Amino acid sequence: MCEANAYVYENGKEILYLESVDILKPEAGKIYLRSLFGEQKVFDGAVREISLLNHKIVLEKK
Amino acid sequence: MCEANAYVYENGKEILYLESVDILKPEAGKIYLRSLFGEQKVFDGAVREISLLNHKIVLEKK
Repeated sequence: MCEANAYVYENGKEILYLESVDILKPEAGKIYLRSLFGEQKVFDGAVREISLLNHKIVLEKK
Repeated sequence: MCEANAYVYENGKEILYLESVDILKPEAGKIYLRSLFGEQKVFDGAVREISLLNHKIVLEKK
């Protein structure tokens, strides 16, 4: 499977935010995420870095 | 493999921009991309939508 987990970067740490992300969409200054399983979250921040080979999306607060 | 192709959305069409993207990183209002093969590009715009299951990153100009 080719989904990735989303983490929030804070104080030098990466905290798991949403597993198995399929969709990521910036919307009105926030980041909408939807997992493979239909779980949806809206993160008030921005993308810091995505590494698809590492299956990793890192978000951070603005 | 779990990389995705990056496309630029323009006038209702999606035009291939970079194949086999590994890294995506917003930097100074632009989007830095690096492929599995080490090819690097900087797109002057933003992420429109990412669908990992579809292996697709869609960018658009601001």
